[in-house]
Amino acid sequence: MSDKPFVYFFGQGESDGHAGMKDLLGGKGANLAEMCRLGIPVPPGFTISTEVCNYYYKNKQILPSNLPKEVDSAMSKVEDIMTAQFGSEENPLLVSIRSGARQSMPGMMDTVLNVGLTERTIPGLINATNNKRFVYDAYRRLIAMYADVVMEKALETNIADGMGIHYRLEMILEKYKKDRGYNSDLELSDSDLQTVSNKYKQCIKKSMGFDFPDEPKEQLWGAINAVFKSWNGKRAKEYRQIENIPNSWGTAVNIQAMVFGNRGKTSGTGVAFTRNPSTGANEFYGEWLLNAQGEDVVAGIRTPQPINNTTGTKISAKNESLENCFPQIYHQLVGIRNTLEMRFKDMQDIEFTIEDNHLWMLQTRTGKRTGVAAIQIAVDMVYEGYIQKEEALLRICPNQIDELLHPTLDPEEEKKKKVLVRGLPAGPGGGEGQVVFNAEDAERWTKQGNNVILVREETSPEDVSGMHVAEAILTAKGGMTSHAALVARGWGKCCVVGASDLVINTIKKKIDVNGVTLKEGDWISVNGTLGNVYEGKVPLKKAHPEKNKAYRQLMAWADSVRKLKIRTNADRPEDAGQAIRFGAEGIGLCRTEHMFFDPARIKNMRKMILAEEQKERREALMSLLPYQKQDFKDILKTMAGMPVTIRLLDPPLHEFLSLNKGQISELAIELNLSAKKINNRISNLKEFNPMLGHRGCRLGISYPEITEMQTKAIFEATAELIKEGHTVFPEIMVPLVCMFEEFEHQKIIIHKIAQEIESKYKLTINYLVGTMIELPRACLTADEIAKNAQFFSFGTNDLTQTTFGFSRDDIGGFLPRYLSEGIVQQDPFQSLDQKGVGSLITTAVKSGRGVNSDLKIGICGEHGGDPTSIKYCHELQLDYVSCSPYRVPIARLAAAQAALI
Amino acid sequence: MSDKPFVYFFGQGESDGHAGMKDLLGGKGANLAEMCRLGIPVPPGFTISTEVCNYYYKNKQILPSNLPKEVDSAMSKVEDIMTAQFGSEENPLLVSIRSGARQSMPGMMDTVLNVGLTERTIPGLINATNNKRFVYDAYRRLIAMYADVVMEKALETNIADGMGIHYRLEMILEKYKKDRGYNSDLELSDSDLQTVSNKYKQCIKKSMGFDFPDEPKEQLWGAINAVFKSWNGKRAKEYRQIENIPNSWGTAVNIQAMVFGNRGKTSGTGVAFTRNPSTGANEFYGEWLLNAQGEDVVAGIRTPQPINNTTGTKISAKNESLENCFPQIYHQLVGIRNTLEMRFKDMQDIEFTIEDNHLWMLQTRTGKRTGVAAIQIAVDMVYEGYIQKEEALLRICPNQIDELLHPTLDPEEEKKKKVLVRGLPAGPGGGEGQVVFNAEDAERWTKQGNNVILVREETSPEDVSGMHVAEAILTAKGGMTSHAALVARGWGKCCVVGASDLVINTIKKKIDVNGVTLKEGDWISVNGTLGNVYEGKVPLKKAHPEKNKAYRQLMAWADSVRKLKIRTNADRPEDAGQAIRFGAEGIGLCRTEHMFFDPARIKNMRKMILAEEQKERREALMSLLPYQKQDFKDILKTMAGMPVTIRLLDPPLHEFLSLNKGQISELAIELNLSAKKINNRISNLKEFNPMLGHRGCRLGISYPEITEMQTKAIFEATAELIKEGHTVFPEIMVPLVCMFEEFEHQKIIIHKIAQEIESKYKLTINYLVGTMIELPRACLTADEIAKNAQFFSFGTNDLTQTTFGFSRDDIGGFLPRYLSEGIVQQDPFQSLDQKGVGSLITTAVKSGRGVNSDLKIGICGEHGGDPTSIKYCHELQLDYVSCSPYRVPIARLAAAQAALI
Repeated sequence: MSDKPFVYFFGQGESDGHAGMKDLLGGKGANLAEMCRLGIPVPPGFTISTEVCNYYYKNKQILPSNLPKEVDSAMSKVEDIMTAQFGSEENPLLVSIRSGARQSMPGMMDTVLNVGLTERTIPGLINATNNKRFVYDAYRRLIAMYADVVMEKALETNIADGMGIHYRLEMILEKYKKDRGYNSDLELSDSDLQTVSNKYKQCIKKSMGFDFPDEPKEQLWGAINAVFKSWNGKRAKEYRQIENIPNSWGTAVNIQAMVFGNRGKTSGTGVAFTRNPSTGANEFYGEWLLNAQGEDVVAGIRTPQPINNTTGTKISAKNESLENCFPQIYHQLVGIRNTLEMRFKDMQDIEFTIEDNHLWMLQTRTGKRTGVAAIQIAVDMVYEGYIQKEEALLRICPNQIDELLHPTLDPEEEKKKKVLVRGLPAGPGGGEGQVVFNAEDAERWTKQGNNVILVREETSPEDVSGMHVAEAILTAKGGMTSHAALVARGWGKCCVVGASDLVINTIKKKIDVNGVTLKEGDWISVNGTLGNVYEGKVPLKKAHPEKNKAYRQLMAWADSVRKLKIRTNADRPEDAGQAIRFGAEGIGLCRTEHMFFDPARIKNMRKMILAEEQKERREALMSLLPYQKQDFKDILKTMAGMPVTIRLLDPPLHEFLSLNKGQISELAIELNLSAKKINNRISNLKEFNPMLGHRGCRLGISYPEITEMQTKAIFEATAELIKEGHTVFPEIMVPLVCMFEEFEHQKIIIHKIAQEIESKYKLTINYLVGTMIELPRACLTADEIAKNAQFFSFGTNDLTQTTFGFSRDDIGGFLPRYLSEGIVQQDPFQSLDQKGVGSLITTAVKSGRGVNSDLKIGICGEHGGDPTSIKYCHELQLDYVSCSPYRVPIARLAAAQAALI
Repeated sequence: MSDKPFVYFFGQGESDGHAGMKDLLGGKGANLAEMCRLGIPVPPGFTISTEVCNYYYKNKQILPSNLPKEVDSAMSKVEDIMTAQFGSEENPLLVSIRSGARQSMPGMMDTVLNVGLTERTIPGLINATNNKRFVYDAYRRLIAMYADVVMEKALETNIADGMGIHYRLEMILEKYKKDRGYNSDLELSDSDLQTVSNKYKQCIKKSMGFDFPDEPKEQLWGAINAVFKSWNGKRAKEYRQIENIPNSWGTAVNIQAMVFGNRGKTSGTGVAFTRNPSTGANEFYGEWLLNAQGEDVVAGIRTPQPINNTTGTKISAKNESLENCFPQIYHQLVGIRNTLEMRFKDMQDIEFTIEDNHLWMLQTRTGKRTGVAAIQIAVDMVYEGYIQKEEALLRICPNQIDELLHPTLDPEEEKKKKVLVRGLPAGPGGGEGQVVFNAEDAERWTKQGNNVILVREETSPEDVSGMHVAEAILTAKGGMTSHAALVARGWGKCCVVGASDLVINTIKKKIDVNGVTLKEGDWISVNGTLGNVYEGKVPLKKAHPEKNKAYRQLMAWADSVRKLKIRTNADRPEDAGQAIRFGAEGIGLCRTEHMFFDPARIKNMRKMILAEEQKERREALMSLLPYQKQDFKDILKTMAGMPVTIRLLDPPLHEFLSLNKGQISELAIELNLSAKKINNRISNLKEFNPMLGHRGCRLGISYPEITEMQTKAIFEATAELIKEGHTVFPEIMVPLVCMFEEFEHQKIIIHKIAQEIESKYKLTINYLVGTMIELPRACLTADEIAKNAQFFSFGTNDLTQTTFGFSRDDIGGFLPRYLSEGIVQQDPFQSLDQKGVGSLITTAVKSGRGVNSDLKIGICGEHGGDPTSIKYCHELQLDYVSCSPYRVPIARLAAAQAALI
């Protein structure tokens, strides 16, 4: 533990912290301090640092002993400014207790408002505010929030029947309103609210066994503990896993004087973005609600109003803007917007409350935005002189580009469709899928290979895993800043929120909407850019990022900066063409096995496998030659002289023989063999551990005729294309080498065939022969292999499998537990394990280049499209990374970022 | 190519070479030269060096251009000594052409005798020898041998119907004899032999399309070429693979003046050992035949006579000894025996020929011997002052000890049996198995899990692979120096030869013997020490090496020299006890999974696996606890304070659930579960690559209660034994760790349980916690793991699997091809791959000891019993190797040798 203070005060132009202290104060705390420094009106308060959180978890969840002293001292400063005292019966100060981690985790951790309100302090507050109803409403809200957040979640109180306290208290309120024929909370009088508060307290005592703590200090420390506790809550941990946030960061706790947006017609609350977070347009964009608390906007329970008259979506524009209702405050807000952009040089997401015609800023943070907006803002800010192009490149999270690349509904087809329901366009792009009604179903259906659209009344943090797998998200409630919208935008996922015509029955799993009934499994299509939903399927259309000027500019900057070449993994000319449009500079992995699964070819493939004599096998193979040749011609032509790394046959032969009984009989007749013979061969080929079995170059060594045929197809394709005037550059890759002798064996065959084709066609072929490095032993003996190889391509999938001893297909049995126990921080198949796999790669690169300085080195596993892994490849000075076509632009940016850091 | 001569002359006390030049001249050539230097009578000749062989294979099988000049010059020296000229019509010199590699490869390469005999030189030789029949017999033999070795094998002449020339010529001879009513070759007259020779030549011309070369020089060079060619013959290559002889050694060619043991009653030929090669007794031991060529002894076609009256087996002793027939020559031979032992300080295997009462030595080499003999001789030679004890230790091939350790037929049981047939005791020990009639069947039956005894008329090099897998070998023909005897003795395998009562029908696969008929698959038992064969099974009895004084002495020397500790892999007290008797110093690997397969336990194991809740799983596990505890008590007690490394549960759970339909129904009733549920769980546990699946510590992390139960069983057993006054030292090993976090997770559980047991029993337990290092990533992150681990034990089986990407269970699909193509020199699961796997181990040892100098390091894979791998472990300064009980003495010797080199 350092000797830094635990508590940092801010308020009235003065503050202990500043924006640069996010690690210690969390994002919220650091920025509140910074706003104070900038003279922006912020309710005074103080931040308990993240070090206290780490102390808490290191010391059996006990807080440091001298924290209370520091808290008391900061609290008295707040009391001085607010001229109210925490716990005072005369003029009580209420405070909010909010979490705030280094990186925003929206809705993942807990908040308690109105802390300090008790039976004893109520009269003082009524006296101060002259608003009895408001005070009892605040009290009711405090009880409900505290019971849920502090008493149930943080104290892990188990309620016998498993029904949550939140739900129980909701039921009391609903019943109370129903008994009295009320339709809305607004009809509840102060005495109603007082009664409800008492009923709440009785219910808490009854179901939880102890009392709601009607004592300010007890509330304060209960809430502080609860926030720290929520850092390791299930939701928060899940979110961190998805977002790769280390557990060790911890959260800060912000304690701040309460201000109220729900004190009548002179009050309100809102959230805004300094630019448009969907498009990136340089316009002030936000929503507010009259006479409401902040949660009402974020939770999306009431549909909010736009802050000004120029922005606002079609629905929100109907309502009255802040600009119209509070013109002076709006202009004060515009000034603050400009100050914040100037200070932070990025789009800000701000929260404000108007209490009795007085503007208070509650938060500013760098705003989440769509990928499109991120690029637009970054490029604009370079033009506007705020930042340099390098900063613009570094500011885009490579995965955000994904969103520009993904398909939208085909507009021509979409035109023909009648809109089923409209909502808010919360996440751009298009999606089609089958309706599911909860996160669990979404995950299950997706695992079974279905595309799903998750339809919810509104989403909550409990839904994130289901939202993650869905093609699109559709909600009946909520605004552009609702949970669903924020999460979807962060992921670049298609999302429509607030489609209020949806009548959703989650029990019967059906939706009634504008006269149509949708059941679970029915197909719908969603246009997240327009906010439209259609019945049935609408074909998707490719993305055209090339039409986005800011994107083109960003990519041009990226290309000018990066050192790594970017190739693609593609087996078909269409994919190769797409990759070129996305900026690929070659093919790093062209698998050849997929070419054999075509019905016209699989028969000969099977004949080959079933052959007993080399002669027979050779005949069957030769009948495959013309097909392979044509495949290679198409793909080599498409790549127009860029390098094309073709991998020789890799999978074990039994993959071509997964047949049922009927298919075996058919095949027996077709090939004039007995079914018994086929069955024998199938069971003969069966392997205990196919991943470690008879595959890769082991096939080419056992059946050299396979290598011969494939090489012949490649070189004949090459020769013919040369004759036709094309430039072509094949690189032949021998897979799964673990000993240099294997590579030598195959290389001899390849060169022999090349010579034959060269003399047959009377020309010289420019080609390379290299190997895939995907086994530990290949890395460890790279010096021997590199002597005669012209390139290495790391197959990091298999290398990860063998280095860890993890079967990728079987990892599901234990990986979830490993993640939840914190044994691994992330799936090593997603991001390259630098300590283990990386050290093998480093060895191979060093010793390979040590004996052969011309050795070309790349990576073609799925890690080739992962930004962290790309950074690592840059540091290792590889020549290229290869990834799937849709990852190419992402890889271009990631490579540029790697070169800049 | 160096500028050394190609040809090295020897003869009449003079020689270019000596015994130290085996690499260049081969064993035979170097020793012929040495014998000349020692004044021993050797027919003059010269050796073409092994460098010529290597030149030959590097230059498309063409010999160096100035070789003929060197050969001519050496040949004229031979002519001078023999006063005969090669190719002369008046007084022709005949020569033998024999191979001779650095290490003896008996019968694996080719020999041609009587070279130089042609129609033109025949009259000259008849004149010189005055023995027409002898000359035509020599001519006939030359034609047959030349046609087979040079014309067919070396020139790879294909004969249309696939019948070999050797067989065709045999048929001619048999038919000729039959037509004339002859029973034996001896009845053939000189003109018969002349006729047969002509028929041979016609047959050769007809079947091969060209003439037998009736020209001395052509014969000479044809034979030289054939010998070089035979170095890469199939048999020779197979033999080298088994014996680990590098292909690069090459063979020399020895050309030597012919001497003849078949020139009548004054001639003979024999082979002898300077000591008894079966027992090692210091007695001159050998066999000879009157009026015969050397091949007749080696081939075992006639049963030979003993060389003296004191040795000789029961059968051979009936015949007349050399000592009686040629007393002077016998005494000359005894003198030579003494000279050779003095010179070579080891038992020699010698060949001699008596031509017309004149003794010629044809060969001396270090003789093959049984393991028993090897140890006896080595220890005796230390006592006799010939060698130092270090030399004695280095002289025993560790695998030879194997033979002392292997069981014999139980003498009590054997007494009750009637001997079915008697033969020569060619390989010691006992064997029981099912009769098979050829090598192929032997291999096939063995693969199917059967124990076989290979029964042959006589064996030939083609049979070696079948002999290798058989429990014992039984032949109808041949003597103690026949092919079968030599090979079996080299391997320490049980073998009986020359059981001439056997009437073997290899086509019908049956044997008639003394009124009994044996079919393929019938059980017989063989006593290789007595030469007895029994019908049916005779129980085997354990070996008692401790009763062998020489062995005890050797092992004591080994233990005084070695640095490595030797432990054993044992799961049961019986095995542990056996290992202790063999000198084990602890258990390096005690697997715990075998303990669950007992019918009384498997039910609870299955219940545990099928449990859905931790509570249920814990209950099932706890019912296994008493069994496990008892297992551990027994084994810990047996080991009496020596360290016992207990590995926590390792195999994937599905291994405990391989059930058929009936068993599932039974289990369902027993456990009161639906069969469907069991089936679901089974299919749920199924894995694509179980080797890389949910096993090892991954189980203990997913189900910590398994680790808890096992640890509890270990520590309770330990505590109870301590209370009972025993000393115990358990070492708990966490398997399949690839990340230090896994190890930490398990270690915490283990320490927690230890504390619980310590306080329950009120005592302190001395134990270690360590991990099995068996994945590449564990080696690469050994520094992290070693920080908190107390020992590492390398599991080289799995480490080899993952480093190579070879599934041990599936390697059969490609390994044979890899061996035959020379891609690997040996199965990496048998001998540790030092370049790949070894470099990972080296890394782990260095970085592990780097952070934890107390780290105890051992190896417990099957490589722990492989001498080459043991040497490697010694060099890496490991603390111990662990191997199966029967390998312990071998490992002790191998460790001593490693320390000496």
